Amino acid sequence: MQLATTIEELRAWRRAAPPTVGFVPTMGALHDGHLELARHARAQNAAVVASVFVNPLQFAVGEDLERYPRDLAGDREKLAATGVDLLFAPDAREIYPQGFSTSIDVGAVGEGFEGALRPGHFRGVATVVGKLLHLVAPQRLYIGQKDAQQSAVLRKLVRDLAFDCTVSIVPTVRESDGLAMSSRNCYLNESERRSAPSLHRLLRRFVELLQAGEPFDIARERASSMLEAPGQLDYLACVDAESFEPLPALRASAFVIAAAHFGRTRLLDNLWFPQ
Amino acid sequence: MQLATTIEELRAWRRAAPPTVGFVPTMGALHDGHLELARHARAQNAAVVASVFVNPLQFAVGEDLERYPRDLAGDREKLAATGVDLLFAPDAREIYPQGFSTSIDVGAVGEGFEGALRPGHFRGVATVVGKLLHLVAPQRLYIGQKDAQQSAVLRKLVRDLAFDCTVSIVPTVRESDGLAMSSRNCYLNESERRSAPSLHRLLRRFVELLQAGEPFDIARERASSMLEAPGQLDYLACVDAESFEPLPALRASAFVIAAAHFGRTRLLDNLWFPQ
Repeated sequence: MQLATTIEELRAWRRAAPPTVGFVPTMGALHDGHLELARHARAQNAAVVASVFVNPLQFAVGEDLERYPRDLAGDREKLAATGVDLLFAPDAREIYPQGFSTSIDVGAVGEGFEGALRPGHFRGVATVVGKLLHLVAPQRLYIGQKDAQQSAVLRKLVRDLAFDCTVSIVPTVRESDGLAMSSRNCYLNESERRSAPSLHRLLRRFVELLQAGEPFDIARERASSMLEAPGQLDYLACVDAESFEPLPALRASAFVIAAAHFGRTRLLDNLWFPQ
Repeated sequence: MQLATTIEELRAWRRAAPPTVGFVPTMGALHDGHLELARHARAQNAAVVASVFVNPLQFAVGEDLERYPRDLAGDREKLAATGVDLLFAPDAREIYPQGFSTSIDVGAVGEGFEGALRPGHFRGVATVVGKLLHLVAPQRLYIGQKDAQQSAVLRKLVRDLAFDCTVSIVPTVRESDGLAMSSRNCYLNESERRSAPSLHRLLRRFVELLQAGEPFDIARERASSMLEAPGQLDYLACVDAESFEPLPALRASAFVIAAAHFGRTRLLDNLWFPQ
């Protein structure tokens, strides 16, 4: 696996790359969920690029930009073992040189839920992925289902601006107790870690209740009560998979989404009902 | 010359296109200034794409979107005669389908001067050109010097988001009396048309005075007084060619810009001092 830390190195590699390139953008601190993206990309493309870039634009002041977990040496090893051809790991100045001022905003799909809680977050995500797509020029982009709203934002980005690539949403990888893999799981202390899988269980229960015909609000209340202390639920909702608008019932092309705090750590999870 | 009105037709052409493509985006009602862009593109690329698209996103409510001059039959003839290979002339729904909500904003470079007068204008320009660049995937983009701030906005767009193409700014083409060619010149009545070239003359005079060592404000006042009735000057300024920030003196890498009303019609002109 080759490492590129500058745009020039990446572009030199890209010019000589085989005809189909799959791209896995990440913020590093890689777990098996990321590697699943790389495995999908490996199976479907002649060449695979992964990026590791902790994107300052998508962190607000006071968020965990500084303490966000970083492990480039470990990431390199894991990506190489998964068959990635090129790792692009630029520093912030390479992507946002002095005077950088451009942003991409996808509108309403990024304004509710995580977007409401983290103003500017999805603008930062759309901007960096837009730029990375120009640099990598992949035929296929691989995004994890775990960050459901991010997947909707990036599909909207690609569709609205007609980027010439497809977007694959890769199913969430879970620990054996059901907890969705996340780079932020390492923040959890022992009791938080023990209760965290209840987020996944309450999502499943919510769907079971809805499928059994329980009224929406009652199902939501009963499922919500399953979150174990010290977890605190932020939201539990059904949303349209494209627009991320709340739905009053479960149907196809939807996410059932939940977010909860465990101490200082906020965890997301979802179940996906594709078309 | 081939005509494509859908994204699908354009993409089919693009997949079979020769290795270097030059792109000339326009809003139609073509004059010799546009054709000069096409001639530059023709000389430097294996294939040339021009687009004719009156972009609703860059017109505010109450501006001249509806009455903006349109002449697709004439435009086709002129572009074919100039050696353009493909004309892309989509309708608004093809570029902005139902639910389209994404925008690209380049920040401060688009906020002064024309941007201050026309809020959202340069966001509309950056968004449509960003999308067209994805569709056409040119190696070289050709932009007229006449819309100086637009040229700075588009260079910023390409640089910040790392579009893989170069931007060529093509010098303004003028009528024999010095009036910069513009699709909006057709709005001028006889007396407005007679006085309009004084906009160009006052720009030249401003530069002469500065080069002769006249203090900036006095030079500006003396030059401004040369605008002939019924013209009304909006601004006369020196700006940095990259950032479009006002400069207190003339130097290299600058535009000297002016805008004036002639009746209901607003005209722009500039002199360019490249690096």
